[in-house]
Amino acid sequence: MSELARFGVSLEKTLLDRFDQLIGKQQYTNRSEALRDLIRRELVQRQWQEGSDVAGAITLIYDHHRRDVISRVTDTQHDFQEVIISTQHIHLDHHNCLEIVAARGKAEKVQRLADALRAIKGVRHTTLSMSSTGREIE
Amino acid sequence: MSELARFGVSLEKTLLDRFDQLIGKQQYTNRSEALRDLIRRELVQRQWQEGSDVAGAITLIYDHHRRDVISRVTDTQHDFQEVIISTQHIHLDHHNCLEIVAARGKAEKVQRLADALRAIKGVRHTTLSMSSTGREIE
Amino acid sequence: MSELARFGVSLEKTLLDRFDQLIGKQQYTNRSEALRDLIRRELVQRQWQEGSDVAGAITLIYDHHRRDVISRVTDTQHDFQEVIISTQHIHLDHHNCLEIVAARGKAEKVQRLADALRAIKGVRHTTLSMSSTGREIE
Amino acid sequence: MSELARFGVSLEKTLLDRFDQLIGKQQYTNRSEALRDLIRRELVQRQWQEGSDVAGAITLIYDHHRRDVISRVTDTQHDFQEVIISTQHIHLDHHNCLEIVAARGKAEKVQRLADALRAIKGVRHTTLSMSSTGREIE
Repeated sequence: MSELARFGVSLEKTLLDRFDQLIGKQQYTNRSEALRDLIRRELVQRQWQEGSDVAGAITLIYDHHRRDVISRVTDTQHDFQEVIISTQHIHLDHHNCLEIVAARGKAEKVQRLADALRAIKGVRHTTLSMSSTGREIE
Repeated sequence: MSELARFGVSLEKTLLDRFDQLIGKQQYTNRSEALRDLIRRELVQRQWQEGSDVAGAITLIYDHHRRDVISRVTDTQHDFQEVIISTQHIHLDHHNCLEIVAARGKAEKVQRLADALRAIKGVRHTTLSMSSTGREIE
Repeated sequence: MSELARFGVSLEKTLLDRFDQLIGKQQYTNRSEALRDLIRRELVQRQWQEGSDVAGAITLIYDHHRRDVISRVTDTQHDFQEVIISTQHIHLDHHNCLEIVAARGKAEKVQRLADALRAIKGVRHTTLSMSSTGREIE
Repeated sequence: MSELARFGVSLEKTLLDRFDQLIGKQQYTNRSEALRDLIRRELVQRQWQEGSDVAGAITLIYDHHRRDVISRVTDTQHDFQEVIISTQHIHLDHHNCLEIVAARGKAEKVQRLADALRAIKGVRHTTLSMSSTGREIE
């Protein structure tokens, strides 16, 4: 962990009161922690825009009874194996599976993996969580 | 304007360096100003979620040659006149109009106005900017 | 207006029922209109990602009593005058102004204008609505 | 799987051409599949807004060397165990962990779990993927 720096911030008093109220509701224990989170969120957004090395999670919902859907999902994951870390598979009910793919690599490639999975017939919903490798937000 | 409060923030040194780099690119002149903006953005988001009094802008793209589109857009705006401040109309080309509706009121009502305009046949695209009346972010 | 094309879509019956329910709530009068809107929204998102010619609206909230804020907002708008179509100014209360800038040009330049306005000391909140020149969604 | 319904859509020819181009790039094999995805995305958004039963994934980035962070993350997950299905833990490097929590339940409770994890000191970044239990988009 990096050593700590300390600096002063000046803020309108009414704005500070509103911020304190908000972070209270969000269960933060102090302002520095809440501000660190706002800053890191900005940095991570920027990393995805700039195409840096990122990490993320792709969620898929599909019906495993649909012909070929499992083999296509698996084939596509193999095509992108250099950006896939691991996959978690959850049986939501008799038909529906939730699969969560942990991915890491160039933002553009992780995005393309999400697109390729979304386009598979039988995959009903896809999301892409844009997170970080952690290094750039230490 | 409210009087200023001053407080200290502690942050990992590497994180602070990255933040300074980012806000340099974003043309901020100092950290307090950048942090104030992050805080206000959070507060405004919360106001929309909680259904407070908000302000915002709705953009519409439509082809004024489409039968009845202008009269329907106008009728709908009259139905919601208590949340509409004013409307700016721009002729993008021979066919396409950009109309920007400045609105103010309960978040839920401004949202409903945007939905009603979006649903009009001939309105091709609608956006809703979620801004603030200014009072809650002083 | 372009001539109409007609094509068939096949959809799970339960999904179609849910879609009909949703667009009923959203006040659409028919499925084609609702689907057109979903398609155009996708196209406009893509235009912004690809840096095409776009149109949009930037909202600003500021306190006109803050020293120099008006002159800085005006100076910045002049620096970007080739992407600004017009500006609408609304007096929200004794202190707060809502200014809505209608802009048109390369996506990247409109984005930079929004960033430059956001960074001005005294500008409290900024949003950027990503809309279209209309031509690409006819 | 539900039986299929078939219906006709009418669309401006130029708009249809642009849509075909877009879905080609997105690797879709036919229009119905692309439209189904747009429709399902709308339905899932609505489910989260309305507070229905949903599924989702929460990603966390944290430094496991930070004092107490692991025990706090674990304690919080136990407090919300009725909405947590399972957790996947990935060692990104010597310091950084990526943890992905698969969750299912009322939208509001899953959101509160994400907030509680975000507020833990030492958790550097959090995202919440809004997905579906699959049932409502069949």
